Amino acid sequence: MPVIGVFDSGFGGLTVLQALLPLIPGAHYIYLGDTARLPYGAKSQTTIARFAVESARFLEAHGADLLVIACNTATALALPDIRASVKIPVVGVVEPGARAAHVTLTIPSTNLSSRPESAFVADAAERPAASPLRPEVLILATSATVQSHAYRTECELLDLHATEVATPLLVPLVEEGWTDHPVTRDVLRIYLTEALAQCVPDAVILGCTHYPLIALAIEQTLRDLGSQARIIDSAHATARAAAAALGFNTIPTDGKPATFDCYATDSVDKFRRLGSSFLGQQIPEVKLLDLGG
Amino acid sequence: MPVIGVFDSGFGGLTVLQALLPLIPGAHYIYLGDTARLPYGAKSQTTIARFAVESARFLEAHGADLLVIACNTATALALPDIRASVKIPVVGVVEPGARAAHVTLTIPSTNLSSRPESAFVADAAERPAASPLRPEVLILATSATVQSHAYRTECELLDLHATEVATPLLVPLVEEGWTDHPVTRDVLRIYLTEALAQCVPDAVILGCTHYPLIALAIEQTLRDLGSQARIIDSAHATARAAAAALGFNTIPTDGKPATFDCYATDSVDKFRRLGSSFLGQQIPEVKLLDLGG
Repeated sequence: MPVIGVFDSGFGGLTVLQALLPLIPGAHYIYLGDTARLPYGAKSQTTIARFAVESARFLEAHGADLLVIACNTATALALPDIRASVKIPVVGVVEPGARAAHVTLTIPSTNLSSRPESAFVADAAERPAASPLRPEVLILATSATVQSHAYRTECELLDLHATEVATPLLVPLVEEGWTDHPVTRDVLRIYLTEALAQCVPDAVILGCTHYPLIALAIEQTLRDLGSQARIIDSAHATARAAAAALGFNTIPTDGKPATFDCYATDSVDKFRRLGSSFLGQQIPEVKLLDLGG
Repeated sequence: MPVIGVFDSGFGGLTVLQALLPLIPGAHYIYLGDTARLPYGAKSQTTIARFAVESARFLEAHGADLLVIACNTATALALPDIRASVKIPVVGVVEPGARAAHVTLTIPSTNLSSRPESAFVADAAERPAASPLRPEVLILATSATVQSHAYRTECELLDLHATEVATPLLVPLVEEGWTDHPVTRDVLRIYLTEALAQCVPDAVILGCTHYPLIALAIEQTLRDLGSQARIIDSAHATARAAAAALGFNTIPTDGKPATFDCYATDSVDKFRRLGSSFLGQQIPEVKLLDLGG
């Protein structure tokens, strides 16, 4: 039974855990949210790397066979530091997200219908034939992720043109619970109007694990602004990349259900209460962890 | 020359330092912003106390004669822990803020005109005679500060009726730089409409050191909603309490200018860049500090 460590600065990575749970039969997951020190999105590379490496070492020491960095900021700023600090394979969210955009935009014949994909990820069969021009991708992310240009680097390797836009108010709005709220729609309209003045995207990558909770509002705002861009939620792409790294390339139809433990560095009550909306199911128990921070 | 330590989770406490600088001639200030672990406003008492005590000990070890906790959340959640961990006097922001509301609302003859008060703090001479009813105070603050009921406790000691309302989006909006922005006014209208359904305040305490940067928008929104409540900015009240604790009860008109050093636990470049809007002057140098977190 594989043990998979999943790390995020807080609750957002639970959207990746939700995508992982049905993919690998009988796996055991250890989720760690560094809630005492969240959010990472406006902090420096040095600080983010220090925090992320501490968490990665904890998960390796607790038996993880594979580490999933279910946090865009930690992946974008600290993936090399994390890989250098542990002996197990490490999967981040940035490369799978960029690859999902590439598949959606350039491989029209791919049969996506059997994949457990987000409702918001375009089915390639529905989209027009690939343009002879380089497809354009818009990445919405935290300030730190944008400044790292991690998505632009991955997209350019795949011959996608990337525009990265920082949308720092979206995490606080999701955490306030305003996922379907006029203020959130106003903020999205402001951010996306600015973004669409810079590019005409074929796809929009949700470059932060909080954003799937407002994917519908993002899609509606894009349509209101005249964009037909497809929404790419990297949570599912990351889950598939993690499964592939362990040799699970098909979707299990039976088998033992997965189990999980959750650790948080701040209030376990709050984690249990708020985490359920990200995970889509109740979290029975959360253990308090002191990383010395 | 007194050395005064000033602590906040981030930049907000610089509004208190700005109020302190002209008050005590020749003082030297050491400001510490725990920017690697900010914000504190949604975290637990245990975590906030642990972080704040580490910072208090650092400032005492660096020669502070007095410690000013220029952070509402750290004061509300951790003042007893901080006082127990250092040997120097400690001044928080909550008691001075509540006292400033009390003075404004109940002592009509006080001559406030010679005090270096915020433009937004009411002059007692302008307000109607004190009502025979208990004055009502509305406190706007972070979730953690509200849940601690620290302001309600202080207000009740002063025979003020307190209503505490959490306004968690205001810090991210100020940090986004949207201090004069339609979205900030919409968010204020939503928060203040809910608050005014619970009470008819005579005064509104800005219970977070970020809020003075949107004091004008808060005042305008209150007026639009039909409230004549006075705005109380606890930064100036805290500065006066700190000066009084050191025996400086008059306003110096000359003397050596104060000096200050700044420490931050995350990016010093960002601190220098963003901190100047909170301090109202350029910050020439910021030193990086590792508190082990």
